[in-house]
Amino acid sequence: MQLKTIEETIAAAKDTSVTIKAPGTVANMVCGFDVLGMALNDPGDIMTVKLIEEPVVMIHNVDNYGLPTHPQKNVAGVALLDMIERMEHRVGFEVTIEKKIMPGSGIGSSAASSAGAVVAANHLLNNIFSNEDLVQMAMLGEKLASGVKHADNIAPCIYGGVTLIRSIHPLDIISIPSPPLYVTLVHPQIEVRTEDARQILRKQILLKDAIRQWGNIAALVAALMKNDYSLISRSLEDILIEPIRSILIPAFAEVKARCLEAGALGGGISGSGPSIFMLSSDEKTAREVETTMKEVYTYTGIEFYTYVTTVNRQGVTLIA
Amino acid sequence: MQLKTIEETIAAAKDTSVTIKAPGTVANMVCGFDVLGMALNDPGDIMTVKLIEEPVVMIHNVDNYGLPTHPQKNVAGVALLDMIERMEHRVGFEVTIEKKIMPGSGIGSSAASSAGAVVAANHLLNNIFSNEDLVQMAMLGEKLASGVKHADNIAPCIYGGVTLIRSIHPLDIISIPSPPLYVTLVHPQIEVRTEDARQILRKQILLKDAIRQWGNIAALVAALMKNDYSLISRSLEDILIEPIRSILIPAFAEVKARCLEAGALGGGISGSGPSIFMLSSDEKTAREVETTMKEVYTYTGIEFYTYVTTVNRQGVTLIA
Repeated sequence: MQLKTIEETIAAAKDTSVTIKAPGTVANMVCGFDVLGMALNDPGDIMTVKLIEEPVVMIHNVDNYGLPTHPQKNVAGVALLDMIERMEHRVGFEVTIEKKIMPGSGIGSSAASSAGAVVAANHLLNNIFSNEDLVQMAMLGEKLASGVKHADNIAPCIYGGVTLIRSIHPLDIISIPSPPLYVTLVHPQIEVRTEDARQILRKQILLKDAIRQWGNIAALVAALMKNDYSLISRSLEDILIEPIRSILIPAFAEVKARCLEAGALGGGISGSGPSIFMLSSDEKTAREVETTMKEVYTYTGIEFYTYVTTVNRQGVTLIA
Repeated sequence: MQLKTIEETIAAAKDTSVTIKAPGTVANMVCGFDVLGMALNDPGDIMTVKLIEEPVVMIHNVDNYGLPTHPQKNVAGVALLDMIERMEHRVGFEVTIEKKIMPGSGIGSSAASSAGAVVAANHLLNNIFSNEDLVQMAMLGEKLASGVKHADNIAPCIYGGVTLIRSIHPLDIISIPSPPLYVTLVHPQIEVRTEDARQILRKQILLKDAIRQWGNIAALVAALMKNDYSLISRSLEDILIEPIRSILIPAFAEVKARCLEAGALGGGISGSGPSIFMLSSDEKTAREVETTMKEVYTYTGIEFYTYVTTVNRQGVTLIA
């Protein structure tokens, strides 16, 4: 960073604004607990960020979720406050957030807010920060939301596609090429707190179960890079986390079994839930999977939303 | 299998023989315990298999290792006995084995014997069995040698290159493409029994350690398929098995540290040891790594052998 360039950049950006779309994301992808994630083309949050002179963050919510507007209590806020500190308090940001990814859905709602905010702000600053810097800032939002600084939603939200977090300290993010994939999601309207979903996991596991899990994640990465749908399907197995977390999600086993019957390659809990995602190799199957999900949840009487979408390849995108 | 074809095949093959080279293999590849393996161009066993009428296995050793010649006590023997059973006792085999991979080296000596035998026999039978069938038969040799039916040496020995065993039941083997890699090995002349090396491992591990391990194996697979040497290097980390097993190998920590200083991408214990392998991106570095290994082990006073080789891409190959 050269000081002169920064000052010129700030002067040029003052009072300008940018509007972005921040994609929803599916963390874990069944066998990649805490390390894999993928971005979705739908749903996505819309955010407008304006560069202001005063080194503060002002947040306006234009949705009905009643999220905090105090910057230190808002996931976008804490990420932008970190950016302001890195900019030595020479800038501030005014943010307008229209959430389309429901908070608590397990589709990376908090990640979209914090990642979207810093990508937009960085654009105003002529991309002074690297994608890795942005992930670091946005992870502060995840820490605020769930108590843990994790990147498995943040990384795909910023990079797009499927991402692997090899390591958090030091941060090591790898983009995994993948074939066309259709994603069907169902979001049953129940509350699963990320913290609780983490709390119920066993801290100790059997070595033999871990071996099976790392065989699956290694195979899934190979399958995605080889465009091998059959192997993707075989690798989408989680014998460690899903058996425990799925207890928190009504009708999980039935939805999963019936979606596989309907032709889905596989799927499971999106992040820590309650949403369930299923991958398909074509749109027709993905729509049949949606019909199946609707049938099961209509029967349970639980309110729900469904989405049929594809893997987002660009990450956060500028729309104005 | 059509009966007529089998009978014709047997008649045509009677009293013919084939000579093969069965490659040494490195199982685990640091972060892929029990699921990854790779084949080496050197060392490799030389075996001649002849098809005979009597449904028995006759074994001749033309080396000085004094391995059992009773077929039920010999790893090649039990694999061939299984093939004879699958052939409904209509054939038998006479096998001559010249071992170049020292038994107990940790470079897949038993796998080379059993895999080499069944690949050679299958060639005589006009490849009536699939590679997966052959892996199943050869795994019986591994069970005899170490008490566990594992495929992480057998699969690369038969398929060549780097292989991933996603699952043993059902068998699911995936070939992982890889860039040119040089392999330097040192085999210190101490005994580490595979059974003992397995016994000392903890049956329970921490979930957080497992997550780090599956981040590494996923990254290693991606790195191999992307020809990304820097990522290969970063991914060659094992926080679970190596800290325990390396205790059995004198000077392990020093060899590893000095080989990394010499420019190796990374490496660790070959299989369950005692051999240590290191990967390099070029031959010059691989030779410097060999010099380093020689220096360390000369100093310890332990007898040792070293090899500088490359990844074998063909698996078991016919040489006559």
